[in-house]
Amino acid sequence: MDTLSPREITGMFLALGVMLFCARLLGEISRRAGQPAVIGEILAGILLGATGLGTLAPDLFAFLFPATGGGAYVLQGLTTLSIALFLLVAGLEIDLSTVWRQGKTAVGVALFGMALPFALGFSAAWFLPGSFGYEPGAHRLAFALFLATALSISALPIIAKILMDLRIYRSDLGVTVVAAAVLNDLAGWLVFAMILGLLGTGHGNGLSLGVTVGATLAFTAAMLTVIPWLIHRILPWIQAYTSWPGGVLGFALSLALFSAAFTEWLGVHAIFGAFLAGVAIGHSSHLRERTRTTIDQFISFFFAPLFFASIGLRIDFASHFDPLLTLMIFFIAVIGKVLGSLLGGRLGGVPWREAWGIGFGMSAQGTMGIILGVLALQVGLISQRLFVSLVVIALATSLLSGPMMQRILRLKRPRRFIDFLDSGRFIRSLAATNRTAAIGELAAIAADGARLDREKVTEAVLARERIMATGLGNGVAAPHARLPGLGGPVVAVGLSPSGIDFDAPDGKPAHILCLILTPREDDGAQLEILSDLASTFYKGTMVEQALAVEGMTGFLALVRSGRD
Amino acid sequence: MDTLSPREITGMFLALGVMLFCARLLGEISRRAGQPAVIGEILAGILLGATGLGTLAPDLFAFLFPATGGGAYVLQGLTTLSIALFLLVAGLEIDLSTVWRQGKTAVGVALFGMALPFALGFSAAWFLPGSFGYEPGAHRLAFALFLATALSISALPIIAKILMDLRIYRSDLGVTVVAAAVLNDLAGWLVFAMILGLLGTGHGNGLSLGVTVGATLAFTAAMLTVIPWLIHRILPWIQAYTSWPGGVLGFALSLALFSAAFTEWLGVHAIFGAFLAGVAIGHSSHLRERTRTTIDQFISFFFAPLFFASIGLRIDFASHFDPLLTLMIFFIAVIGKVLGSLLGGRLGGVPWREAWGIGFGMSAQGTMGIILGVLALQVGLISQRLFVSLVVIALATSLLSGPMMQRILRLKRPRRFIDFLDSGRFIRSLAATNRTAAIGELAAIAADGARLDREKVTEAVLARERIMATGLGNGVAAPHARLPGLGGPVVAVGLSPSGIDFDAPDGKPAHILCLILTPREDDGAQLEILSDLASTFYKGTMVEQALAVEGMTGFLALVRSGRD
Repeated sequence: MDTLSPREITGMFLALGVMLFCARLLGEISRRAGQPAVIGEILAGILLGATGLGTLAPDLFAFLFPATGGGAYVLQGLTTLSIALFLLVAGLEIDLSTVWRQGKTAVGVALFGMALPFALGFSAAWFLPGSFGYEPGAHRLAFALFLATALSISALPIIAKILMDLRIYRSDLGVTVVAAAVLNDLAGWLVFAMILGLLGTGHGNGLSLGVTVGATLAFTAAMLTVIPWLIHRILPWIQAYTSWPGGVLGFALSLALFSAAFTEWLGVHAIFGAFLAGVAIGHSSHLRERTRTTIDQFISFFFAPLFFASIGLRIDFASHFDPLLTLMIFFIAVIGKVLGSLLGGRLGGVPWREAWGIGFGMSAQGTMGIILGVLALQVGLISQRLFVSLVVIALATSLLSGPMMQRILRLKRPRRFIDFLDSGRFIRSLAATNRTAAIGELAAIAADGARLDREKVTEAVLARERIMATGLGNGVAAPHARLPGLGGPVVAVGLSPSGIDFDAPDGKPAHILCLILTPREDDGAQLEILSDLASTFYKGTMVEQALAVEGMTGFLALVRSGRD
Repeated sequence: MDTLSPREITGMFLALGVMLFCARLLGEISRRAGQPAVIGEILAGILLGATGLGTLAPDLFAFLFPATGGGAYVLQGLTTLSIALFLLVAGLEIDLSTVWRQGKTAVGVALFGMALPFALGFSAAWFLPGSFGYEPGAHRLAFALFLATALSISALPIIAKILMDLRIYRSDLGVTVVAAAVLNDLAGWLVFAMILGLLGTGHGNGLSLGVTVGATLAFTAAMLTVIPWLIHRILPWIQAYTSWPGGVLGFALSLALFSAAFTEWLGVHAIFGAFLAGVAIGHSSHLRERTRTTIDQFISFFFAPLFFASIGLRIDFASHFDPLLTLMIFFIAVIGKVLGSLLGGRLGGVPWREAWGIGFGMSAQGTMGIILGVLALQVGLISQRLFVSLVVIALATSLLSGPMMQRILRLKRPRRFIDFLDSGRFIRSLAATNRTAAIGELAAIAADGARLDREKVTEAVLARERIMATGLGNGVAAPHARLPGLGGPVVAVGLSPSGIDFDAPDGKPAHILCLILTPREDDGAQLEILSDLASTFYKGTMVEQALAVEGMTGFLALVRSGRD
């Protein structure tokens, strides 16, 4: 009986702790810098991996992330489970009706986005095998097919995460990209099954290629039609006759595991099964929001960071790295994928800007490519040199995709009032007892922060207040003004335990006073910040809880966590 | 580089799916039968394990739960992670102030509950080594110490789960038992470290026994004092400056993993670190209820069932089973543990009934004993025969503990009105438009269900209604009556979309009519059911949602899931 030693168990817990902590930390930093969190999570893996920690402290690296023995198996098993569960969440959040609506466009994007890089990759490998890392003696057609597949497959998990991070996962564009990526990657895995057939190794499940393709299509069709219908009928019964929420959680998670096992057995990857199970379960309106959130949050902030941090662990940029090969493959991969997907989108009637967005959305490679690469390396189809290039490209395209989409689609994060509340602009207890004095108090600290004249700011806000009282009701007031030449919005908050009359519609005195200065040129800022403020304190107890905070950190903590 | 084959990955997903599904299913059945859910979860493992599936379909069993190779490591790693995370939840739910209050009693219980079985076990093994599975040639003192430890160690994870299932985890008695189990098991692991020292094998961390003991005590003390204080100060900062809830989830989980790694390295088990991390984090009032629930639910219904189902997987009752040895050890273990803990409790001033409850609460062995047994088997200290006996006893005591506590402490599940709502006693849309007619409609179906006379039931409920109107307000009415000779409570529910006046305090018409018949002899039933009804529909939208259900299943699903 094989068992883990205490040393291996210690290593496992430590490795998971370090990966989770670093991935979350760099993810937060990445988000602060306006990038998708997944970029930081992947970078964390590179820093902890062969390139970073592996070079600086090889012994510690080998202890944390052993390449052989029990520890290696456990890490791989856990990251495989993590990615499947993350795809369950990605599936849960997909709206099946949007899939049907965007279906035709998605098929076009998948088709052209796959065909172009496939053709380019195949030609390159067939006509210049030596330049692309062909191992002399390997099956030449299989090699060309493999490179074509590796360059045309996308990275469903990374694409889903980037779209979520950018908050466009549920938009028409997001659904189109995800649906196209699913089709694309499914097709890629089926081609790979064919390659293994050519090599005579096969997947070990004894199925012929025809059966694999047929079963995959039939299963996908069932998971989008009959199964969701069935689940929708079963869920109320589970919620009625089992303990809450154990019954429904156990059902959803075991269904995802079964479905993952089935697609893995078919020879396509486990993630497709988990994703389809998510789509099928998420479609039911009987699945309560609360259950969805529990699954979503735990998986997104425990399993997902572990997986994304694991991607870069094994790459050593120093050895086997061939810059020229990498560059050539990078251009083929990106140009082929972006232009192909762009073309597919245009043919589906998507406007230019969105079509470019789709192109770069589809451009993230990686994960799938790396998994394929490992298998190809094992059967002796490709060289170490090509493998390293594939891994580097996987990372590079993943890092490129998010920022490019952000730029092309001009995505902005919704602005919250606390984004403009710097330290020193928070008064725990206002001294003022009337409106004019309170505005003066807040205007003074706001003016100091923005390097403006105190008098002028106070006057501008009071002038606005005379035209229209700014009590929003529910104990919140938002005196505000638009000023010329201001660099960006400035917010100052003061709490008044005794309350100050701001002539609110509900007649209640204001306890939370939020002074908002916005640039005259920025039309949207004022309304955006005001409506965020109003919706933050919409729930009755938020105002009471705010009055109980100890200082600005407590106030920020409350505002961020209260929106859930 | 060691990697999992597609076959092993398929097996992993399938094994996890089967374990989760069966554990949850048997857990539900167990709960329905009035037993703690954990009993069903453990039984699921026995059915899926060597005794059940392993005998019926050895090939499938070997595929799902391989004993060697990558699959074996992955399963062990995952169940080890599962148990540590479950202990994190157990720690989160502990109230540190109750620990301090119950501390003295807990120390007494731990001391005597450990000393008596230890003394009995040591004597038995020392004076009759042959009868107790002594392997000739093994270190005799080490053997005696090992048997004494194995019989005096308790099963912290199982004890925590049973107390949770019985809903007494947070009571004074529950906290006493858990705190005593923690002390008991910590001491047990330290003794085991000593035994390994005697054998000259050691734990492999190069620490002397003194350092291990000292570091364990210092770490425990820090996690109960300084660390909670520190976490309480850090949490608001995390919630203020990181994304919600990713920041706080990542923090809590990585802290638990680090802490688990540290205690595992010390040579005591990882679960202690995870538990102490839970206590330290859970102590902070800044940890929001929402975060607590997310961690709690996901771990309790995903990781915990996997762990509990894994306990019985490897035992084969057929081979190496020695009934006499098992019986002898069982008596020593149970009598020693129950009487010792009872004595400790009595000396701490606990009344007789509660002291017996504590005794049986502490009596669950297993998990820790099995882990110790595996290690002892590996170093050649004990025979297969003794190992199997230890495992059987672990299971038997775990199955005994819950039901015994339930009986001794006379625990009852809180009764909910839906527990007495059988099919056929639900009217989707009442025909009646006034109070008397509505009561007649509901009384008729209630009487049929309870085999009573329709006239008499209607008359009894109307008589009660004349004395006092039963509109509870908020759209709910609860006409009721106490009847002589009724076997148990009977409930019938009718919905009235148009509303019927029941003279409610808030003047609103009733849309949900719940007729309640209780036995005249059962004083508590009526009040219990009435207050459950009122609190269920206390939230404004529950009544609206109830009016939208399609039938009784939908109504039950809503009531069960709406309480969250």
